[in-house]
Amino acid sequence: MGTINQLATDFTTFSKKIHAYNNATAVLYWDLRTKAPKKGMDARSEVISTLSTEAFKLSTSKQMEDYLQRLTEEQTYQQLDAVTQKLVEESKKEFDLNKKIPTERYQEYVLITNQAENLWEEAREKNDFALFRPYLEKIVNMKLEFIDYWGAKEDKYDTLLDQYEPGMTVKQLDQIFTLLRDKTVPLVHAINESNRRPNISFMEKHFAKADQAAFNQLVLKKIGFDFQSGRLDTSTHPFCIHFGSSDVRLTTRYDEQDFRYALWSSIHEAGHGMYEQNVNAAYNGLLLSNGTSMGVHESQSRFWENMVARSLPFWEHFYPDAQQAFPEQFAGVALEDFYRAANLVEPSFIRTESDELTYNLHIMVRYEIEKGLINQTIEVGELPQIWNKKMKEYLGVDVPSDDLGVLQDVHWSSGLMGYFPTYSLGNVYAAQFTHAMKKQLPNFDDLLRAGDFAPLNQWSREHIHQFGKMKSPQELLQDVTGEQVNASYLVDYLEKKYKDLYQL
Amino acid sequence: MGTINQLATDFTTFSKKIHAYNNATAVLYWDLRTKAPKKGMDARSEVISTLSTEAFKLSTSKQMEDYLQRLTEEQTYQQLDAVTQKLVEESKKEFDLNKKIPTERYQEYVLITNQAENLWEEAREKNDFALFRPYLEKIVNMKLEFIDYWGAKEDKYDTLLDQYEPGMTVKQLDQIFTLLRDKTVPLVHAINESNRRPNISFMEKHFAKADQAAFNQLVLKKIGFDFQSGRLDTSTHPFCIHFGSSDVRLTTRYDEQDFRYALWSSIHEAGHGMYEQNVNAAYNGLLLSNGTSMGVHESQSRFWENMVARSLPFWEHFYPDAQQAFPEQFAGVALEDFYRAANLVEPSFIRTESDELTYNLHIMVRYEIEKGLINQTIEVGELPQIWNKKMKEYLGVDVPSDDLGVLQDVHWSSGLMGYFPTYSLGNVYAAQFTHAMKKQLPNFDDLLRAGDFAPLNQWSREHIHQFGKMKSPQELLQDVTGEQVNASYLVDYLEKKYKDLYQL
Repeated sequence: MGTINQLATDFTTFSKKIHAYNNATAVLYWDLRTKAPKKGMDARSEVISTLSTEAFKLSTSKQMEDYLQRLTEEQTYQQLDAVTQKLVEESKKEFDLNKKIPTERYQEYVLITNQAENLWEEAREKNDFALFRPYLEKIVNMKLEFIDYWGAKEDKYDTLLDQYEPGMTVKQLDQIFTLLRDKTVPLVHAINESNRRPNISFMEKHFAKADQAAFNQLVLKKIGFDFQSGRLDTSTHPFCIHFGSSDVRLTTRYDEQDFRYALWSSIHEAGHGMYEQNVNAAYNGLLLSNGTSMGVHESQSRFWENMVARSLPFWEHFYPDAQQAFPEQFAGVALEDFYRAANLVEPSFIRTESDELTYNLHIMVRYEIEKGLINQTIEVGELPQIWNKKMKEYLGVDVPSDDLGVLQDVHWSSGLMGYFPTYSLGNVYAAQFTHAMKKQLPNFDDLLRAGDFAPLNQWSREHIHQFGKMKSPQELLQDVTGEQVNASYLVDYLEKKYKDLYQL
Repeated sequence: MGTINQLATDFTTFSKKIHAYNNATAVLYWDLRTKAPKKGMDARSEVISTLSTEAFKLSTSKQMEDYLQRLTEEQTYQQLDAVTQKLVEESKKEFDLNKKIPTERYQEYVLITNQAENLWEEAREKNDFALFRPYLEKIVNMKLEFIDYWGAKEDKYDTLLDQYEPGMTVKQLDQIFTLLRDKTVPLVHAINESNRRPNISFMEKHFAKADQAAFNQLVLKKIGFDFQSGRLDTSTHPFCIHFGSSDVRLTTRYDEQDFRYALWSSIHEAGHGMYEQNVNAAYNGLLLSNGTSMGVHESQSRFWENMVARSLPFWEHFYPDAQQAFPEQFAGVALEDFYRAANLVEPSFIRTESDELTYNLHIMVRYEIEKGLINQTIEVGELPQIWNKKMKEYLGVDVPSDDLGVLQDVHWSSGLMGYFPTYSLGNVYAAQFTHAMKKQLPNFDDLLRAGDFAPLNQWSREHIHQFGKMKSPQELLQDVTGEQVNASYLVDYLEKKYKDLYQL
């Protein structure tokens, strides 16, 4: 018994060391993106590379292999406490992911994706898919090769999905997207044809950066982001990064010509951030101190960004503050008009600029293409044509050129496949969780009207956040909502909200 | 030959890895002191400890020992290029310093100094030297024991001096402080008795933090601190930290009731910072990318803080800017009066609050006591009495209590002995370097008046900064000034300046 305890302690210490390296790397990265002086960036990248290489070496070392081998022996494993069991499980998953690929093949992959990212950038600039095509073909082929090493699941694409959303399958996603397509596409088309386009001109006046920053701080504080355990800074692209639950950093970018960008992106990132701040502090320093999956993480950011901060009751509370902060810009603008402008639906070519309703359709296009590439029913050469056809069908838009179409995202060039669906899963989970939350907080809308966000936070901490990685997405969904993933809550929410807004 | 080159390359790579860890640790430390949210500090300290322990392990590892053994073999060493030779030399020095002490004794020392720091804090609060005394006795005894391990030089205290100011000896310091005592003490006494105390009331009006920050940025930019390779932030205690020459971070603290604190501390730290920014970029990533000694580093901060930024020509240039930035505070205040207020001499009990002239006398008190402790001619129990006697003799002040006397500095409790003299050496070197600079830039005062600081920076880079640790302090002094350390330049400078200011 004593030796098993000792083994568990040694392993935890070893794991904490790796985590400390990753933690340090994250601080260096945050600093690079928010504070580092211009000329210091190159040297910084080298240091980040040294540290992350070291962490990678440790997490795939002979020492790690030995620990995992001994700790996963049935008899030993059964005697471990739940936290150590989970730590072993997650470490083993990471180890297998990295070690099953022969080193030379992995190095080849790193090389190709590096080249591909550069080529993709050039291709997008020149609006020339042919430039990028051979690299994307190589990447797809390597993904297929790697899937064989990792072990193909029922669907080959499931192997990739599992890396970002553990347990997620094509079977489930097909159901989800079928429902989304059946219910959302007609809604989008109806909105396209409606003449209820809201006035958004007051959102596009001049909003001084400092005033926006102050208003964002006010909102984030009030909804429950803890500034004693976090910060809000600026960077080119908004992100959330954390170094344990007591140090969570958000960034945003202020567009002085548009009130909407910084505010909703800050709230989005704060949703990620509050998840991290609420993870049980007992997991600090362990890789369990982290949201359980990309999809569940995204559900928390989308909950705050959309279900809360794009709702009418939320603005019943905050609109007076907004009017006080920006008296000229919002003078004479009725709450109802502000609310409608905040929920403009406008099919566009670009995913990152799209609204709550059309967003999932952008993801669906990518999902269907990725699934086809990995199951070899679609060839890379056909992509521009397929992309544009699907965009027309789902969003009703004619993509004018590949740089605004199939070349718009960096993801594929850096080898990210199976990642896009987690964005939509975030929305699906968010609606499903919100449904459960409202059952226990039937006065949800009144709380928003009163600016009393503590019960929402308390509920999220208790049912979702505190567990960190201790519960899988499936366990979490089952425990919180009593069922597995179910897109009907999202569809109901979207239909109700947008039919009402556009009087359909 | 090939194998020696390979060995040198491998060693450099190994050394760079250690340096990367220390670099990362420095970023984490900077973040902790300037940006980290309150509740994130504990977890951060653990990560810093993990990384610095790892760096320490590497720099004292068997692998390091093997490298050093092979590279210091006469035949091999001679074939190395100058940079690698220096790298070997510095690494060997660090290795010996850390490895000659038996591990248990070093751990005991860490334990005792940790306890001593806490006890010192309590003793200072309670104004009770007896509380601290047994710990200081233990520390002195351990220093004596360690000196035996390291190897006693001509004077035992030389061994300690060498760790902060390589090559410095009691023999040299005795000469320096004798001259300082003979020439400065009578000057201080004369000023104490003069009735020319300048008016400083306008320095103690209200200066808004943001206005001070803007003015400091303006001054720092103009004197040549490169904000593309650096930053200025706020922290409780001002410091300068760097992660290579292209990322140098300064901090200051704004006292809204005193114009002087933030400005001159910013300029002081910028002096350190410009030294680091000017080190040859070829040494980036190596431990040679660093000022050569504490004393030479301090000479650069003191040069800018005192020789430049407390001079009349400097304020002939900047006073109009200051008046524009703070029109109410400086209304009707003549340049001459501002200059006199900036150079107030006022003997005080506290070193950190002391002026340019009396500062060295505070250091002299500490030097004489440390030397006595290490040579066992002074006992710890006698310290309060000896301290107060020396303060009376040199500065003419009656120390009212030990918390304002012998208990004021943290240094001894954390085992720093041999460090204090480098502060005065900084002033000595600064005057000596300035003398040499003025020979080559005879229009020095005109340059200040014109706000043209580039020639000063250029000279400093060419003669001092660029070499980093490649030249020892002795080599540097000899090459730049044609002689070894000589305090008469400082004494001449102080006598001329303060006799003039106080009309003596």
